[in-house]
Parts: sequence; C-alpha cells; structure tokens
Amino acid sequence: MADILSPPARVPRADALSKAAGAERYAFDDMPEGCLHAGAYRPGASMGMAHARIVAVDRQAALAVPGVLRVLTAADVPGQGRHGIVHKDQPVLCRERIRHAGDPVALVLAESPAALRAALAAMRAELAPLPGVFDPEAALKRGAPLVHPDRKDGNLLMHAVIKKGDARKELKAAPVSVRGEFFSPVQEHAFLETQCGVARQLPDGGLEMVLSTQSPFRDRFEIGAALGLDPLSIRIRAPHMGGGFGGKDGATVQCLLALAALYAGGRPVRMAWDREESMLAGFKRHAARLSCALGAQEDGTLTAFTCEMLYDTGAYAHLGGEVMELSMEHACGPYRVPSLRVEGRCVYTNNPIAGAFRGFGVVQASPAFEGLMDELAAKLGMDPLELRRKNALRSGDENGCGVRMGSAELPACLDALAAHPLWTGREQWRKEAPAFTRRGVGLAAVFNGMGYGRGLPDMAIAKVELTEEGGFLVYASVADMGQGNTSAFARLAAQELNQEAQAIGLVMPDTERCHPSGSSAAGRTTYTFGNALLRACAGLKAKLLARATMALMRDTLDGLALEAGKVVHKPTGASIALDALARFLPRDDRIAVGEFLMPVAREASATARGFLIGFPHLIFAYAAHLVRIEADELTGQVRVCDYVTVTDGGRVLSRQGFDQQAHGGAAQGLGLALFEDFLLDDGRILTGDLSTYLIPTALDLPDMESHAVEGCEESGPGGLKGVGEVGMSGPVPAVAAALRHALGGKPSTTALRLLRRPPFTPERVLRLLATKPRRTE
Amino acid sequence: MADILSPPARVPRADALSKAAGAERYAFDDMPEGCLHAGAYRPGASMGMAHARIVAVDRQAALAVPGVLRVLTAADVPGQGRHGIVHKDQPVLCRERIRHAGDPVALVLAESPAALRAALAAMRAELAPLPGVFDPEAALKRGAPLVHPDRKDGNLLMHAVIKKGDARKELKAAPVSVRGEFFSPVQEHAFLETQCGVARQLPDGGLEMVLSTQSPFRDRFEIGAALGLDPLSIRIRAPHMGGGFGGKDGATVQCLLALAALYAGGRPVRMAWDREESMLAGFKRHAARLSCALGAQEDGTLTAFTCEMLYDTGAYAHLGGEVMELSMEHACGPYRVPSLRVEGRCVYTNNPIAGAFRGFGVVQASPAFEGLMDELAAKLGMDPLELRRKNALRSGDENGCGVRMGSAELPACLDALAAHPLWTGREQWRKEAPAFTRRGVGLAAVFNGMGYGRGLPDMAIAKVELTEEGGFLVYASVADMGQGNTSAFARLAAQELNQEAQAIGLVMPDTERCHPSGSSAAGRTTYTFGNALLRACAGLKAKLLARATMALMRDTLDGLALEAGKVVHKPTGASIALDALARFLPRDDRIAVGEFLMPVAREASATARGFLIGFPHLIFAYAAHLVRIEADELTGQVRVCDYVTVTDGGRVLSRQGFDQQAHGGAAQGLGLALFEDFLLDDGRILTGDLSTYLIPTALDLPDMESHAVEGCEESGPGGLKGVGEVGMSGPVPAVAAALRHALGGKPSTTALRLLRRPPFTPERVLRLLATKPRRTE
Repeated sequence: MADILSPPARVPRADALSKAAGAERYAFDDMPEGCLHAGAYRPGASMGMAHARIVAVDRQAALAVPGVLRVLTAADVPGQGRHGIVHKDQPVLCRERIRHAGDPVALVLAESPAALRAALAAMRAELAPLPGVFDPEAALKRGAPLVHPDRKDGNLLMHAVIKKGDARKELKAAPVSVRGEFFSPVQEHAFLETQCGVARQLPDGGLEMVLSTQSPFRDRFEIGAALGLDPLSIRIRAPHMGGGFGGKDGATVQCLLALAALYAGGRPVRMAWDREESMLAGFKRHAARLSCALGAQEDGTLTAFTCEMLYDTGAYAHLGGEVMELSMEHACGPYRVPSLRVEGRCVYTNNPIAGAFRGFGVVQASPAFEGLMDELAAKLGMDPLELRRKNALRSGDENGCGVRMGSAELPACLDALAAHPLWTGREQWRKEAPAFTRRGVGLAAVFNGMGYGRGLPDMAIAKVELTEEGGFLVYASVADMGQGNTSAFARLAAQELNQEAQAIGLVMPDTERCHPSGSSAAGRTTYTFGNALLRACAGLKAKLLARATMALMRDTLDGLALEAGKVVHKPTGASIALDALARFLPRDDRIAVGEFLMPVAREASATARGFLIGFPHLIFAYAAHLVRIEADELTGQVRVCDYVTVTDGGRVLSRQGFDQQAHGGAAQGLGLALFEDFLLDDGRILTGDLSTYLIPTALDLPDMESHAVEGCEESGPGGLKGVGEVGMSGPVPAVAAALRHALGGKPSTTALRLLRRPPFTPERVLRLLATKPRRTE
Repeated sequence: MADILSPPARVPRADALSKAAGAERYAFDDMPEGCLHAGAYRPGASMGMAHARIVAVDRQAALAVPGVLRVLTAADVPGQGRHGIVHKDQPVLCRERIRHAGDPVALVLAESPAALRAALAAMRAELAPLPGVFDPEAALKRGAPLVHPDRKDGNLLMHAVIKKGDARKELKAAPVSVRGEFFSPVQEHAFLETQCGVARQLPDGGLEMVLSTQSPFRDRFEIGAALGLDPLSIRIRAPHMGGGFGGKDGATVQCLLALAALYAGGRPVRMAWDREESMLAGFKRHAARLSCALGAQEDGTLTAFTCEMLYDTGAYAHLGGEVMELSMEHACGPYRVPSLRVEGRCVYTNNPIAGAFRGFGVVQASPAFEGLMDELAAKLGMDPLELRRKNALRSGDENGCGVRMGSAELPACLDALAAHPLWTGREQWRKEAPAFTRRGVGLAAVFNGMGYGRGLPDMAIAKVELTEEGGFLVYASVADMGQGNTSAFARLAAQELNQEAQAIGLVMPDTERCHPSGSSAAGRTTYTFGNALLRACAGLKAKLLARATMALMRDTLDGLALEAGKVVHKPTGASIALDALARFLPRDDRIAVGEFLMPVAREASATARGFLIGFPHLIFAYAAHLVRIEADELTGQVRVCDYVTVTDGGRVLSRQGFDQQAHGGAAQGLGLALFEDFLLDDGRILTGDLSTYLIPTALDLPDMESHAVEGCEESGPGGLKGVGEVGMSGPVPAVAAALRHALGGKPSTTALRLLRRPPFTPERVLRLLATKPRRTE
C-alpha cells in the first residue's frame, strides 16, 4: 500500500549517531570523580508489608559498614518533607508509616556502590503491620482502612462527572445498546535508563543537579517545597534520557538526591535506582475499571454513552486525578456522541503509586469504548469499520464533551484501513489458518488530546542564539525522553533559519540557560516548544537581516536573504558571513526568545465538574490501527503477524520521527495487550523484575507499517500535532477485536469477560479459546 | 493666541533636576584618580600659518618640563593614522604639512594640567609656509595651491547636480523671475561643554573611553581605522552632553585620546579642549555661496528654480559633501517647484574644517530660497505670506527633487501666522516705531529632511530590561546632546509599559551594553530610536503578560494587564508583582530588543547625480517663523522684539521638549542672523574666543512663542517627527525679511546685497539703513 502522504526526505535524527555509537551521555553516565552514592531503605518490600507503622529505624549496623557516611531519616529532612505535583502528600522519607511496599524510611550515603549495598542490607526497621486496602472498590467502603487518615474524604482522592444531555434517559430509549465492565491493568514504564541523577550543593547553598527527568523546571519547585529551599537556587540539567514515558514526570530521585546533597558537605552525590527499585518505587500506569454502556439507533448512529470509572492511584495522589480526567474526557472515543455521562472516582490504596504514562488515561479508556463499538457492530450486524466511519469525529464536529474539533482526519485514517488488503482480505486469511492456529484481524480507532488542557498554561519559551562563530544554538527547554524532539527542534531551526543541519547546535534543558517550557508530556513538546522555537528563529532571522543592513550599507531590507552561513544581498551578491556579523552584535542581540501559548477550547465547557485543571482539550491526534494475529490453540500464545497504523498527526515534519512514534506506541501498547502482567498480592509486587514482568522485545513483534494521512493543524509548527501518545491506545482494543474475530461468531459471556481484561497472556487466551473449543468454520 | 494644538501635560524632563542641581556628570566631569592629561600641539595658530610644511618638531623642551611623560608625533601613530567619516583624509597627527591653523603635530602627555600647559608652551616646530587657498572660488582655479596634492580632483571634493525638468528653459520662459547671490557664513557650535573625554587601555589591549560624542558606536570604527585597532575592542560610553549640535559628530578628541592611551601604560588619560582650542580645531558650519534664480507665473505660481552653490569644507572633507547634498536637496524650499536645477561644488581650502551643524545644509539654503521668495513677492506685489501659502508643499505633493510628501502641514503653519496679531498688525506696529528706530516684521517658511536619507540604513536598536527589582531599564543607544531625547525615551517607555515615570531608569549610550543605533543627528533620534524603543517595550510587555500566565495559572492572556509594578488578572484581581515575576525569569528573558529601520523614498530618484549617500529624504518637518525687530538707526543694533514659531513636527510627545527644540533652534538661528561673525584672515581665526565671537545670551533674546500644528506622521513613534533641526533655518531669512520690511519700499542693489549676507551685525545694519537714510513713511 502506498503512503497516503508522500513522505518527507528521511533525514537521520540528530542524535542517531551518538546514540548508536554509545557516545551520548545520559544522566546515568554521570558519575563525577569522588562522588558519594545515595540509596533509599525501603523496608516494606523486604518485610512483605505495604501498610505499616514505623516503630523504629535502626541505623547502627548500617553506619558501622566501612565507607558509610550518613543514614538519614525523616527527622533529618528540612522543610515540609513532602512532595507531589498537585497534592503534596508523598513524604520524602516516611516518619510514622509506610503506605506502600516501596515507601522509603531512610537514606544512606556511602563512598561506594558496594558500601551502599552493604549498608542497605544492614539496615533494620521495626514495622507494625496495619490493615491495608488493595482494591479500589473496597477502599471506598465504610470502615475501610485509611491510607491517609487525616484526609476528610477518606480514601477518595477525586470524584468528578462529565455530563452532556441526559445520557441515562437516551440510553434507555436507544433501540440498541451494549454494556460491559472493562478492566485496564497496571503497567510498568520499564524505560532502559532507570531513575537516576547527581546532585551537589554549592558553597552558596544552592544545588546543582543532573537528572533523568521529564520536568526539570518543575522539579525545582518540587524539591524547594519539599525541603524548604529556594526553588530558584536549584539548577537542574536534563541530558538525553533513556526513556521516560511519563514515569519521570514528577519527583522520583529528585528530593532524595537533593536531601543527600544537603548532607554531603559539598561533594557530589549520585543516586541510580536498579531495575528492582525502579519497579518497586517508580510510578505505574493506573489500574482502572470502567463500567460503560453505549446506545445507538438501528442504523448505527450513536446516541448515548455512560461510564462509571474507578481509578486506583495507589498510596499517593501524584497525577491520579489528572489521569482519570483524561480517561473521562476520552471515554466515549473519537465519535459523535450526543449525550454522555461519565463519572469517575479515583481512590487511594496501599498499592504502588500510579502516575503519568504515555496515553495518560486514554489507554485505560480505549479498550472500553472500542470494545463496546465492536459489540455494538456485532449486535447491529454491521461491519465494525463501517460503524466507526459512520460515527467518527470530523473537523467541525462536537466531541463527547462538547468541544468543537479542529483538524480531525479520523475518517481518512479509517478509509485507509478500509482499503488496506489486510482488511479487505481478512476473512480469506482467517480461513487459511494453519492447524492448531486461529487467526483474527482487529482494528481500533483512537484519539488523544494534546497539551495540558484548560486551567494550566501550556507554554513554551524557546531561545536561539547566533554564536560568535556564526553557528546557531537552540536552547531546548523540554526534555528529550528519547522520542527525538530535540532532533525535531534542530530540524525546525535549520529550516526556519535556512541553514545546514550541522550549523545547528543544541543546548539540552538546563534551568540556568534555558527558559521554563513545561514538562515533556502530553504530546506537547514538539507542538508547543516547536512553535515557540519557530517564533524565536523568525525573530532571529529578522534581526540578522536588519543588522546586515548596517554591514552591507543597505537602507532597506529589500533583497536581503539569510543563507547558509551568511546574509546575502541578492541583487548585488554582496554578503556578510554570519561569524563576521556575530562579532558586531552584543550577546543580547545575538539571541532571540520566542514563546508560544497553546490555544485552548474557548467554549466554556459546562459539562464537567470536579476537575481541577486539564479539561477540556482543544486539539487531538487521531489514529486507526489494524492488527493480524495468530493464536496457538495448544499454548494460548498470540503472535502478532502484522500491525498497521494510520495516524492523523497533522503535517509530518520528519517522517522518521513520525514513524518511530507510531511504532514505539504500538509496541508499548502491544506489550500491554499481550505480555505485561503486573501482579500484586496485598500491595506486594510479584513481578518485580524483567524476568517476571515481560516486555516485548524486537523478536516478539513484527515489522510495522506506519502511514500518515494528510492533515494540517493550522496552529502547529509546520502544521503538525503531537503524535507521541495516540499510538499507545490502539493495540489493546485492536488485539481484543482480533481475538474476537479469531474466536468467531458470538462470544459467550465468559469470552466477553476475558476480552475485556488485558493483557491477553497465554493462560487467558487458552481460557478464551476454550469458550469455543472447536474451529467452527 | 491660543495654541493650535492643545498641549499635552507638561511633565518635567527626566534630567531637569539633576542638571539644575549640577549633579549630572558629563564627560567633562570625568577625571579619574591618577589620570594623565593629554593635549595637542597646534603650531599653525601660534605661528600664524594655515598651510605649511613641517620641517621639524622639537620636543626636547617640552619633555624637560617636570611631569611630562611623552611627546608623541606622527611617527608614533600606529595604523593608517588618518580618520574621517566618509573620506579618511584627516591625520591624527600631521607628518609632512599642516593644512589649517588648528592642525595638530604633536600630542603631549603630562601628569597635571599645569605641566601639560607648560609643555605645550615649550613645544617648538619649524614650519615652512606654503601658499594657501582660503577662498573656495580661488580654490577651483587652475594653479591654485592644492590642499591635498595627491588628490586627482585637486581641491574639488564633490561636484553634484540635481535636475528635474528643464529649469533653465523654464526660467527664461517665466513671466517673472528673481535672482541673486546669497552668502551663508561660518558658524561656531559654541557648546557649553567643549570636546573632551577620558581613555584607558585595558590589560587585554582594548580601550575604555568616556567621550562627549554624538556617535559612540561609529567612533569605535573611526579610532580603529585610524590607529589600526580592532574597533570592537574599544568600549565607549557617552554620558549626557553639554551640547553637540553636530560638532561632536565625528572624531574630535577621539583618536588623539586613544593614541594617548596607547602610550599611557594603562593609566587613564583625559583630554579636554579649552574654548580657544575648541574654536581653533573644532568643526564649523560650512560657509557657502548660492547663486539662485526663481521663476514664477504672474499669479505667483512657481515654475523654475536654479542654483549654483559653492561650499567651503576647509582643510578636510569631514561631512562637507553630505552637508552640501542636503543644501541642494532643500535648495528650492518647502514649495512645489516643477523644474529645478541645482549644482553644487564642495571644495577644500586651508580654512578650518567644516562639518555637521544643526540644520545641516538647510541653514545655508534657507536664506536664499526665502530671500528670493520675498523678492518675488515684492516684484509681484503680493503679500509674502500669501505667495508662500500658494506654493507651500502639502501632503501628497512632489517636492523639488521629485519625492512625494507624506505628512506635510506647512499650510497650517502659515495659516497660523496669517491669523497671528503680530502679522495682521504689522504695518501698524511698524508705523508706531519710536524715534531713531525702525521696525520690521519678517517671516520665513522652512523644512528639514529627517534621518540619513537613502543609501545608509537609518536604524536604531533599543533594549529594555525588567530589572531584578521589578523596575525597567531603557538602554539608550543614541547620545543625548542636551536636547532631552533620553527623557523622551523614558516617557515613551513609561507610557508603553504603563508604569510610573520613576520606574524607568536609563542606561546612557555604552557600546558594551547598548546596541548600535547610529548617531545623534539628522533629527532622527527620537523618531528612529523611539520607534525601536516602542517595539522593545511592546515586546517586553507581551513577554511579561505571557510569563505571568505561569505565575497566575492562566491558560490564556485574557484579562491580563501590565500595571504599575505588577501584572494583574483583571477579572479576578489576582496579580504578581514585577519584582516577583522578575525572579522567575533568566536575564535573557527579562530583556526585549526592538529595532526600527526608517522608511525611505521608494521612488528611484533619478534627479540627482554625484551623491554618495543621503539623498533623497522621505519625511520632513516644517515650520513657519515670524520675527519682529527694532533696528537702532544710530548704532545699527537690532533688537528682536518677538519671535513666533509654528512647527509641524507631527504629534507632540512632550510639549516641553517640543517647545525647547523650537526655542533652542530659533535662538541659535538668531545668533547666526545677528551676532555670530566668524572672521578669518588667510585661514587664521580672528574671532577665536567668546569675547570676539558673540553668541546670544538670554538677555539678547525675547521670550518666544512656540506653537504646534496638528499633524501626524504615521510612521513616527506616537506620530511624531524630529524637530531638532527645522527651527534653526528660519531666523536668518525671517530677520532678513524683517530688515527689508524695516527698510521699507524697494531696496537698492546695495541693500539687497547686504540683506543676502548675514550676520546682520550693527556695522552691516548701519550700512543697510544708510541705503534709505530717512524714515520715509
């Protein structure tokens, strides 16, 4: 199948060579000469407790280990001692109780990793078990153990409702309706580079830190608030990251490391979690349950959608409420739904802390809305793709929450799949399944809001500098998790400034040299920062042309052009080299700062209540995914044979970057669909390493097809939208649909229940196939 | 008479108090601890020679004076040793010959002013007189002594022509015509603060200088080229000046001081010319002769103008050609003249060097075109004001050089005078003259191009900074000669930023901290830099509102306003103080840079040839002046009884600043009209101090009326045009007209010749009155 959009030239990513050669230095690689090593003592895990009173912490044995300098406890923490992006409820070190198995109660500083390990092993605490709560429904029951006894709402973190029309009434009146409860599991980020960083206190009391973080500018305020420091005295640098996916949005090592630095006598301190600590203490994707109902006319026109969702944020709020908000906003899918009622409750439990994760709430919602669409299609006897085409949001439509869509090319995405041979040939292919194998083809349509949404300015401030040598420096203010946004920035700058790629240098995020531009999150970085950067570049370009008038003795700007390495007066050919021009300009005149504030939905959205920030969104990316699977009847193992993504991300800036985002999202989504089964037992993690928690490797997945549809988001830099998240939400519903297709006919109640409960591990698939034990066609 | 335009509130100038209190520090006040004193040895003056070969320079006696460190001669000058804005023909120290009486041949460095004086008195040179040339007509003759023998054009510096239509033919065909030769004399700038400065060489070889200069940014290049230094290694600061008027546009002390610093071993060196040195060596207004003819229809409609002008630039080119260009461009006055021929020659002589002076060439031209208008009116029997109204340039008209006028409110200026009681009552007042007194009322209409004109970018770059304390700093890049432009900048910034006046601080021009913005000249500073500043302020304002979104958690800019000391969200009243906001912003984000490039005449002007740069102009200020004089029949002394200016300077930003410019220009013009008689004898200055060269004092002039007409120059900051120069050109023709009126009837040929030759000193006025010895009315 030909690309719908002719691909831009595939220019290698700016960071490709350095990363492939192992030359790129990550925060993990930062180990300054003479640095100390800090580690957290988390007794809950070793003692098998997730909720307990801290009776005593004994640091004597640890302090006796040679090379151990300090063992800090809550009593050593200055300031309020708590952090949290929205609610400051998470202790830097626990004082009275631990609320989940990974909660830290002490921080050890040692001269070497070995001494640190020995000291952590020597640490002892006396914990008195407390009754725990591990199920979000149980957490809401009267008399449930309280995770935060001082909260007046008990275990309920947030309760919110979105309401448009009278959905319950419309649902009753609907000629056809389907309903069901869907479950979305915990997911581990499993980035290559675990949480880590280095910190050092300066003689003036300020801190210098290098962190693997998605939000260097916000981190300063998290640390400052937690430890009673002036946030602006903290300098944070964020080099290239080995993955983030949301798991490095918020404080992980930040406050502990800063605390350690305050006690390190000016020496640098390094903290790097190993995989086990990362899985124990890091943020997870929220588990959620969604009870949904969808009503339609007999021709398939959707009329009503209701949903009640329950979110488990774990022991601390972190971004629980905000993730659920997006789940609620996206609950009815990328469709025209005239009446809607979504109610959400997010609760505390003694499970691991959940937080941001690529697809932020949409991943939890998409299996439900897409699952119901498939059930509705079956009930109506309609082709599932046709049902989606019929209801898909188009530009100008109002979405479920009452926001009018701008650029929305989902119909084109679906059209592309409808014509795709893997779709048109699906029944034939299914029939040709080999022995002991079932084949199925499934699809899903998804969307994902871009940016922070209302209530929080989604702003970026870009700076670009003409160097004294006549090159350009882009001050990247948003972290690069590996998605390649800094490469995109270099490319945008080169285009706008009309320079060769090698003329563009990058300054990675540094709170001292760069300008606050929000977090690397919400599919916003290339869009928001890219826009700001284009403005900065346009400003610098205009400036250089104007300055060149003096050097070239031109009394107007007529005929002046910025070209590679020079400004030229076209009519005469006279030119001045950029290094020469740079010499004439004071530094204040060699920089240009540009900013961009993401537009927001202007219609006051009266549909939601209970939300703090982040609702509604104005701009969405869309995608349609297709998967072909083979399920082994003997082992239950599912093989992904083919995967096709068709994405509306506006115009494509870099075809390579675009495809990588589509591939990466689908791969991570397929992990959630098929492999990643995060198991907990009363808050204790049963799958605490990568031998028990399986993530897909290159051998587990096929090559994928990524297509782009021709769209243009007028507000985007070069017309693009963020595509980092939308790809993540398709695989679970697409695989569920494919399994349903493989099963054939009308699924039993048991089969439906199994289809609503990813991941589709061999065990579950065997059970699913057992509901239709014989190949019936 | 009521003001035509209701005056804006009279806000005191920002520099009023510090200057009135004597607290303002000028370059002249800069005398660093332990500084050396440098002075130039100019033997021509003491030896009564203006053109001579330097046979020998004897520095022994000077070096023997206690406290004398160095006596430098041309052999000690590194680099090419010559300076000059357009032509590098002026030696820093003369090597082989002196070309005018003030030429320097040695530079003395001493520990004290007394030692310096003694050393200069002890200096000896052997000069061999060379035949000199002191008259510009003689300079053009074959065989004339050559001022620069190596030039291929001999003494001719520039020959240029402006030609529109066939003016000679039209003149012959004109039913009425007048013609005459006008003479415009040398004028001394006579600023309060003479040429001065301090320089110091830094350990890295760079220079730091504080100068009384109109062009700090260009000075670096003058010095660099003259002494073989990197111009960008020279830092120049320009504090408030005690007058400049064009006489500090170009190198005066600059190169000598820099040379001294190179030999001062890192100590600071001060050079300050006394009044005599200032008059001997400083730049003057060019003397010029203009032979003009003006033709008209019988109804007074002008048809043709021709002019041949001869300019005496003195010993060096400096801005001779450029001043003559403006004289040529303005030669036919602010009138519609369909055919025109102006030919100019600018020549070298051994007279003092001429250069820029307020009214730059227009002052030389205005007595001629206004004198002919009066003669034409008399010949036609028309009221001179009516003749001017009939022909005055209006918006949309083409001027004599073929440029279409934008905002041009000369008719309104003339209307205002026509209605003025001093004009309507002029005959009555004349009749009521007391005994031995003649009375006359004269008027003049003038205009003055603004900015550099074509060929040279007229650009300014303004920077404004939000300080850490929440105030604002305006980086003024164009020098304040005393005209109050920096006060205007502070006012513009306060208005645009909506801040109290005291919130605005000023950084005076400093090549290290400010940005190149051209010279303080050509009536351009408030217009060009003001425009740039408004853009910088608008940029900073937009930035602060945007940055406040983050502090105030607003997701749009709606309702945000910059108010005194804070940004406010109007709907909620929430606000953030500017000092708090400033803390969040790195310095790169607390500055905004704005630039402005003055628009130029877009019609390719094919009328001129021989010009390098500066022709034509697009924007002009206009004015009509009226003077009432009384001439004493016994002494010839003329008393100015009343002076009225009506000026079109676009919109008025500061009424006080506007009026001060009108008053100052008229006062300086009246000095040229009545008092200032710069006398030369074979290049030797006979009026070398202020006891012989008389300038008007407050007691010599009446209070003046300044009126503004309502105009608006759309391209100007707040609609204004520069008014610093236009006021200077009115007094000479207005006084000549008043004397003619006082004389009564048709002047004799002798009287006409005298009326064409300012200044109208008592001696000349007695001769003039003698042409009509009796009071005939």
